[in-house]
Amino acid sequence: MPPLPTTAAELAEHLLAGDKRALARAISLVENDDPEGWALVREIYPKTGRASMVGFTGPPGVGKSTLIGALVKNARAREREVAVLSIDPSSPFTKGALLGDRIRLSEHFLDPGVFIRSMASRGSLGGLSEATLQAALLMDASGKDDVFLETVGVGQAEVDIIDHADTIVLVLMPGSGDSIQALKAGVMEIPDVIVVNKSEHPLADTMIREIRGVLSLGPRTSWRVPIVRTEASKGVGVDDLVEKLNEHREHITAEGTLEERRRRNLQNEVMQLATLRLRRKLEESIREDASVAELFGEVVRRELDPATAATRLLDREL
Amino acid sequence: MPPLPTTAAELAEHLLAGDKRALARAISLVENDDPEGWALVREIYPKTGRASMVGFTGPPGVGKSTLIGALVKNARAREREVAVLSIDPSSPFTKGALLGDRIRLSEHFLDPGVFIRSMASRGSLGGLSEATLQAALLMDASGKDDVFLETVGVGQAEVDIIDHADTIVLVLMPGSGDSIQALKAGVMEIPDVIVVNKSEHPLADTMIREIRGVLSLGPRTSWRVPIVRTEASKGVGVDDLVEKLNEHREHITAEGTLEERRRRNLQNEVMQLATLRLRRKLEESIREDASVAELFGEVVRRELDPATAATRLLDREL
Repeated sequence: MPPLPTTAAELAEHLLAGDKRALARAISLVENDDPEGWALVREIYPKTGRASMVGFTGPPGVGKSTLIGALVKNARAREREVAVLSIDPSSPFTKGALLGDRIRLSEHFLDPGVFIRSMASRGSLGGLSEATLQAALLMDASGKDDVFLETVGVGQAEVDIIDHADTIVLVLMPGSGDSIQALKAGVMEIPDVIVVNKSEHPLADTMIREIRGVLSLGPRTSWRVPIVRTEASKGVGVDDLVEKLNEHREHITAEGTLEERRRRNLQNEVMQLATLRLRRKLEESIREDASVAELFGEVVRRELDPATAATRLLDREL
Repeated sequence: MPPLPTTAAELAEHLLAGDKRALARAISLVENDDPEGWALVREIYPKTGRASMVGFTGPPGVGKSTLIGALVKNARAREREVAVLSIDPSSPFTKGALLGDRIRLSEHFLDPGVFIRSMASRGSLGGLSEATLQAALLMDASGKDDVFLETVGVGQAEVDIIDHADTIVLVLMPGSGDSIQALKAGVMEIPDVIVVNKSEHPLADTMIREIRGVLSLGPRTSWRVPIVRTEASKGVGVDDLVEKLNEHREHITAEGTLEERRRRNLQNEVMQLATLRLRRKLEESIREDASVAELFGEVVRRELDPATAATRLLDREL
């Protein structure tokens, strides 16, 4: 194989032509917060916005990766090119879960129409959510028709990460007290589609009833969140899920919600990047300023409260 | 009852004297991001740093609140004053989980030596984590010996919130696939003490073995994370947990880690508050600037990438 070019412009050209290696390299640049990565995204950004982006969240162990594997297979049968980005916002202490997930997707590793990547580290900017969007934009520009974003867990951090998606799928499984509790604990307004995986479980019907109950407490909107039963390991229910995903996409396109959602997400993204830069600038200014150590000392000695210290920090000449 | 005073200084006086109503009022001010709340924290801050702060995290449904109820009882028997702050970082769509938890703590509602509060909303500053620390400081200043912070869930947002605690307890239960998975998914370096609640469950031994396995992969430190078995609903194992909590406190005091942890947490707090203010200032500047709408429009039309837009946003005259 010829060596990959090293300038952003040339790398962009390869990426836009669908070169998988160029895409992999580009994502690494973004993940490492390399300035070349940002230059690359700037280059390819006008070619983005075409892919359908679907985010998957849900407690660990419910079978998200198996489900995504089944969706990849389904998309490939329809000759769609697919990229999968798995994000683990928790610390990289053990990678067990993600490694296991990668194995479940391994049958697609050799398919040139499928690109699979996982990301766990945070760039120096501190924004895994930002790196996720940049990576998703790169996948989009490289000609993928479907971009699947997957997170482990259902906390706020996890939701922020897939917030860039056009459609959000919450995956649950029956017979898990945690799942129902997670549901109640306030993630119900997030999903556009709910999947009850492992639906051959005897408690599946009970769970679906419970989900309906929780959903009925929510605000009425023009989109009624469907609950899809799947048994992903056997491919059961996958066609139905694909149909619901398409219906949601048609719905948000027709209603103008897709446009609106993307506008909101991109604005948030710009604001988030700007805030991260302000914080970085603040951190740099602190390292060079001996008086800040004294300020922190006063806080630790309980002589100055944190809020007043923050005001003094900002009142310095930056 | 006489009416509560309305100035920060007078309210502070009542709070420092241990008046429960003053504490409740003060926390509401902080929760609502009322300037009076910040003034109050400034006032009482020199009297803080005395309470022992313990944070509890773990998947929903493992019995955290029951366990905390048992710890409260135990502390009261030793004539210690206690405050409990339950935080739900997820959205306030349904409050089921927290309401249920409050009921479990209800036997302590009438005890003047116990203060219980839950918080779910974010202040306008956007920082639930910041509001939590402010509330914990108020509890500390009001003379509580123990402050228990509890979050629902084990995501990054949840961990950030109890990061202010001196000791962090991860509560799990056997027989829940989600719990083990959550564990593997990278929360293992967080806890100082692990509790396996509902330990009469037949799978408790298996779970403890699995936890030991995961812990053995972690870095060796001077503190060996103990695994405590409890059956909180019957009070079983609670004395043992109290002993481990005390041991951890003695350990971090002797090693100087407590000092170091608090220093780090307070510095982070100052930085976080400063960043939130910068963001607020940025948001205000945007509302008044028509050119920003045009900038966002360019991003949405894919003419300008988000990172470059962020740079332009910051390059304006603020």
